[in-house]
Amino acid sequence: MVGGGPGAFIGAVHRLASRMDDHYELVAAALSSDPQRGISAAKDLRIPRAYGSFEEMAKAESKRPDGIEAVSIVTPNNLHYAPAKAFLEAGIHVICDKPLTTTLQDALDLADMVKRTGLVFGLTHNYTGHPMVRQAREMALAGELGPIRLVQVEYVQDWLSTPLEKTGQKQAEWRTDPARSGPAGSLGDIGTHAYNLACFVTGLSCEQVAADVTTFVPGRRLDDNIHVMLRFSKGAKGGLWATQVAVGNENNLHLRVYGEKAGVEWRQEDPNVLIFTPLGQQRRIMTRGGVGTGPAAAHAIRVPSGHPEGYLEAFAQLYTDLAEQITAKIDKRPPNPDSLLVPGVADGVEGVKFINAVLESSQKGSAWTAISRSN
Amino acid sequence: MVGGGPGAFIGAVHRLASRMDDHYELVAAALSSDPQRGISAAKDLRIPRAYGSFEEMAKAESKRPDGIEAVSIVTPNNLHYAPAKAFLEAGIHVICDKPLTTTLQDALDLADMVKRTGLVFGLTHNYTGHPMVRQAREMALAGELGPIRLVQVEYVQDWLSTPLEKTGQKQAEWRTDPARSGPAGSLGDIGTHAYNLACFVTGLSCEQVAADVTTFVPGRRLDDNIHVMLRFSKGAKGGLWATQVAVGNENNLHLRVYGEKAGVEWRQEDPNVLIFTPLGQQRRIMTRGGVGTGPAAAHAIRVPSGHPEGYLEAFAQLYTDLAEQITAKIDKRPPNPDSLLVPGVADGVEGVKFINAVLESSQKGSAWTAISRSN
Amino acid sequence: MVGGGPGAFIGAVHRLASRMDDHYELVAAALSSDPQRGISAAKDLRIPRAYGSFEEMAKAESKRPDGIEAVSIVTPNNLHYAPAKAFLEAGIHVICDKPLTTTLQDALDLADMVKRTGLVFGLTHNYTGHPMVRQAREMALAGELGPIRLVQVEYVQDWLSTPLEKTGQKQAEWRTDPARSGPAGSLGDIGTHAYNLACFVTGLSCEQVAADVTTFVPGRRLDDNIHVMLRFSKGAKGGLWATQVAVGNENNLHLRVYGEKAGVEWRQEDPNVLIFTPLGQQRRIMTRGGVGTGPAAAHAIRVPSGHPEGYLEAFAQLYTDLAEQITAKIDKRPPNPDSLLVPGVADGVEGVKFINAVLESSQKGSAWTAISRSN
Amino acid sequence: MVGGGPGAFIGAVHRLASRMDDHYELVAAALSSDPQRGISAAKDLRIPRAYGSFEEMAKAESKRPDGIEAVSIVTPNNLHYAPAKAFLEAGIHVICDKPLTTTLQDALDLADMVKRTGLVFGLTHNYTGHPMVRQAREMALAGELGPIRLVQVEYVQDWLSTPLEKTGQKQAEWRTDPARSGPAGSLGDIGTHAYNLACFVTGLSCEQVAADVTTFVPGRRLDDNIHVMLRFSKGAKGGLWATQVAVGNENNLHLRVYGEKAGVEWRQEDPNVLIFTPLGQQRRIMTRGGVGTGPAAAHAIRVPSGHPEGYLEAFAQLYTDLAEQITAKIDKRPPNPDSLLVPGVADGVEGVKFINAVLESSQKGSAWTAISRSN
Repeated sequence: MVGGGPGAFIGAVHRLASRMDDHYELVAAALSSDPQRGISAAKDLRIPRAYGSFEEMAKAESKRPDGIEAVSIVTPNNLHYAPAKAFLEAGIHVICDKPLTTTLQDALDLADMVKRTGLVFGLTHNYTGHPMVRQAREMALAGELGPIRLVQVEYVQDWLSTPLEKTGQKQAEWRTDPARSGPAGSLGDIGTHAYNLACFVTGLSCEQVAADVTTFVPGRRLDDNIHVMLRFSKGAKGGLWATQVAVGNENNLHLRVYGEKAGVEWRQEDPNVLIFTPLGQQRRIMTRGGVGTGPAAAHAIRVPSGHPEGYLEAFAQLYTDLAEQITAKIDKRPPNPDSLLVPGVADGVEGVKFINAVLESSQKGSAWTAISRSN
Repeated sequence: MVGGGPGAFIGAVHRLASRMDDHYELVAAALSSDPQRGISAAKDLRIPRAYGSFEEMAKAESKRPDGIEAVSIVTPNNLHYAPAKAFLEAGIHVICDKPLTTTLQDALDLADMVKRTGLVFGLTHNYTGHPMVRQAREMALAGELGPIRLVQVEYVQDWLSTPLEKTGQKQAEWRTDPARSGPAGSLGDIGTHAYNLACFVTGLSCEQVAADVTTFVPGRRLDDNIHVMLRFSKGAKGGLWATQVAVGNENNLHLRVYGEKAGVEWRQEDPNVLIFTPLGQQRRIMTRGGVGTGPAAAHAIRVPSGHPEGYLEAFAQLYTDLAEQITAKIDKRPPNPDSLLVPGVADGVEGVKFINAVLESSQKGSAWTAISRSN
Repeated sequence: MVGGGPGAFIGAVHRLASRMDDHYELVAAALSSDPQRGISAAKDLRIPRAYGSFEEMAKAESKRPDGIEAVSIVTPNNLHYAPAKAFLEAGIHVICDKPLTTTLQDALDLADMVKRTGLVFGLTHNYTGHPMVRQAREMALAGELGPIRLVQVEYVQDWLSTPLEKTGQKQAEWRTDPARSGPAGSLGDIGTHAYNLACFVTGLSCEQVAADVTTFVPGRRLDDNIHVMLRFSKGAKGGLWATQVAVGNENNLHLRVYGEKAGVEWRQEDPNVLIFTPLGQQRRIMTRGGVGTGPAAAHAIRVPSGHPEGYLEAFAQLYTDLAEQITAKIDKRPPNPDSLLVPGVADGVEGVKFINAVLESSQKGSAWTAISRSN
Repeated sequence: MVGGGPGAFIGAVHRLASRMDDHYELVAAALSSDPQRGISAAKDLRIPRAYGSFEEMAKAESKRPDGIEAVSIVTPNNLHYAPAKAFLEAGIHVICDKPLTTTLQDALDLADMVKRTGLVFGLTHNYTGHPMVRQAREMALAGELGPIRLVQVEYVQDWLSTPLEKTGQKQAEWRTDPARSGPAGSLGDIGTHAYNLACFVTGLSCEQVAADVTTFVPGRRLDDNIHVMLRFSKGAKGGLWATQVAVGNENNLHLRVYGEKAGVEWRQEDPNVLIFTPLGQQRRIMTRGGVGTGPAAAHAIRVPSGHPEGYLEAFAQLYTDLAEQITAKIDKRPPNPDSLLVPGVADGVEGVKFINAVLESSQKGSAWTAISRSN
């Protein structure tokens, strides 16, 4: 693990997620950019091999016969590229937090390296690990919704309604700091999740965006709200709203997809349920593990319907699927196809393109701005 | 009553609404543009004085000593202006369905006449009659939300997901016919309700829109979906989405307003509830007639909390408040201030401006387009 | 109207309900047991013929050629029997609030008179007027649920959590006063509604009860909580809980019925929805006026799905159905069969038997106590 | 681990739960009563030390210097007592599934041994591990609800609506088999969970029950439905309903507690939320990790509010708290007091007494039957 030292939220999440299905052992870490703090934190966590820097770790591990097979990169956004590159170069599979990088050039560079090395690269857009999200995708791709007309996605939070970054709260500090987060605030932090989810479920690609990017809290250095209108391939349209200043919302990610033949709705805060309405029929409450769910969902389930799974289980699913991908590489066999649903470096490139297009559109008076498909 | 003959939905609603609180008696009507059908329908409804046309009705009623004091105009959009004008000229108060007119010129003309005649003019944006909508407005205007940042409003239906207008369904026919609906489909039918609700609750005026107007159903002659980004006075921003092709949604009008100090959420399909979250506190479920509701809501309530009121009661509230306005005019006394919340001709002008700005923006590549405040 | 003067809740409800569908005109009333107050209140309500007592009213109206056709009795429980008897003897149809009477003898006596006179007698168990309640009944009786196993019904309120009756609140005063309410508090006030609803929807008769009746608030003279276990005909079992001291519940009447083939759930506070689950299928959200509802529900609907109807509309449905029953009598034709769903005097007798059986069981250590079917 | 071989549901749950917070390593197991199957299954799970029987395992492990510190017993009910006894005698801490035993004598015997040996004994009433359940308990015990009046608890499932046990489904087979489950079906399987939850949250002890125990599915050998009326200490009353034949319910465990000063409601299928209503105030939506939750909840939380935790996390909390208890014993220090909330052998005895009292009451015509407090 790289990053995820004291005060970090997501490091602990990655550790829990990797442990859940018993496919990983955490044996080496460079938990902090401060070597002393990193080594000390690793000891507290009883991680056998503690390193002062990711460079050192990549080098040392690649030389050990029992070196790590995969690394998790859970640093702030500005520190994804360098370690990802270092470990790929060292021949080590990479699991990286999102957004992929802070510049498109870096993202394309990583994509290139992944292609060249043939290594596994997982990007932890964790909401794609939910069984009912995969169920929705399976239905959409099987044509059960008919041609898709509308994709509405929201990611609504309130934790940055006040200038929390000025109180010393670490999460707020780096997420509102351009040096560490890159040019996007809420856009990068949660907007990219919403965008990825919309594309993941529908299988559509977004062609153009018209965006209005706002910073509501005085003194904040990055955006805390984005309104985006979307135009997808095949004539579908949509809306994306991400905000961190909507008082009364904790982590309200909500996706709605409407096709000619049916509609589906999913909420992150009630993730075991998918509302499905075939045209001219009653709304149906589909449940994780319940009647009528298909193999893609079944693949991602641990306990029976009615026994709620949540955030950590979905996150763990990505780790588990990546373990299968990595093991298949080692065993030189094709992986279980369901394990291939984990977002990868291409999704990371797409996310950075989305960030850039939204920022560009907003700067140009919300003009429709293409998301380039050329790369 | 003008309009509202056989096959009409809203005519019966107006009749129920006007009867509920016992302030009106329906004594005269021109229910159809076809004189025979109109007279016959009025007889079926046991309306004492049946007319073949609104012109005839306005003329005759204005001459009777016991002539009507107010008229309800419940015709398709293209037939609001002429009867409204005729009755205003006849000195009769007008209650008119929305949108006010199909052109801004007509709307301004009516506004002028209302000013000149001093007559009461009510526009039935019926959702403003809900107690919890008025509660939200009272809280917003009292500053309980703090300066408002975000206004998100959606009006989501599915009844036009298929080309229903080609099956002979009367509601669908006229609502998708430019000759009767004017230039706006879902935009005029439900988009204006959503817009009015957003402005009503926040007290803000919208300055600019950037819109993407779409017709999804092949062969349909008017829009069935609008995405709009909004910029309000005082720096507030928002999103408005109205659609009639989102399978699984019946009449899902949903308003969310977030300020620096609190957020509120209201749903038309669960209208007795308002979710209120003060910054840094728990979400609270406020109920119609329940603890903590203020005088504006209390004014609009018939039965205690826990005994749901609905669509008709809210509609009736407008009629009741207009009765108070009219009676006060007759009695030459100031009306109960709570009765003045009913949308009037100025709101109707605003709605037509909104329609025009949305259409213009969409035609100009979603460019930000001003809603003129000069009139 | 008899009863329903100043301070009464239910009088205004009956007036609204009778007016909604335009089948009644309120022309005569004895609104109070205090003649002066009653006459004065009738004047305030612009009721043409005000009487000082129900005896006087029954006598006078029966003699007028334009006398009332039906009377509404909305007095406290102890004053149902005498006016009901007086008007039945005067040949006037009766609409009476529940519970029917305070003693079984009085109830049986009224049942006898109704039989003898052939007059219409409606008992306002208003929740039976909800379209989705009638939908549930239609499905149950059509066998869509299969043989019924379980009937769970709750009526949960909190308005009597404190000794409100000692503060001068009129509703609380008479409802906790044995002289006016009879021997049952929450049991008579809301328990009978719950019981009636369970029987109405399932078509089952209850054979035995085992009950625990409690008064939680010190000094209260009647029960404010009942727990009842139920044994129905055909082997069905159930639970009934009614309380007025459950803090956080306004008017939470909730019915669940489970058969071998399906289950249904309905909530009074969300009355436009019926949750329906066929065995081995997904839960379905049925809506008032929505897909898949049958003729019994359609009969009781005013506005389309998605436009919520509520308490008053359901109450109005009883009035409308009784108007049809009365008109059919006058016209000597069979009534619309759907209008016959309104609870009548037999349901009133059943309710009083239920009250008696619950009280008897509770006094006998919750022993199973039969509800006699002999009458 | 003892039990939990192929086809078992709860074995995998225990393994996941024990792994989540990284306090356990699974090194030894007797997974099946069939030695060959057990050893083979252990190999599949890569468990280092596989035994053919629990007796062998207890003996061998107690002799190893690196023997297990604690054992999980996840066998059917009839096989809790013997292994629990064997491991306690071997000086090994025990984590045991519920219900504790199939007879009161066995339960008391285990309680005695636990007392005598001073070993840790955890009973996996897993719902007590939910942060919002602990929050409710903390509030109840702190007096925030006032003296408690009502405790309503339901555990509603539908998976046994048909004779599933005749189809070869293993879960259904043993849970409806008196030889393996003991004398109670739904009563032991889920009724004891409901009962434990009610007692855990309120801190009250139940003094008497009046019960009606039913088997609805023909040919089933144990009950599949129980209705119970409850009388608690200090005058509180309640209702408990557990069923496995209510079509449309997956795992609907629902607790409501009402006191003189407030009410709380919690649902297992939406476990991150607690509805809290102080008397005379609005209902409040408390969330796991959200505003206003106290230290007992904070102790049991892994990720921030809005990121749902579920069934496995709550289960894991018991394992984590038991790890603390065990470690504290080893370290000879007092454990973190929050870790002591895990149900233990005394709760197991209480559960068996509840089973016995319910069965006895039902056999005696639902007579009120005491739950003895003497032991």
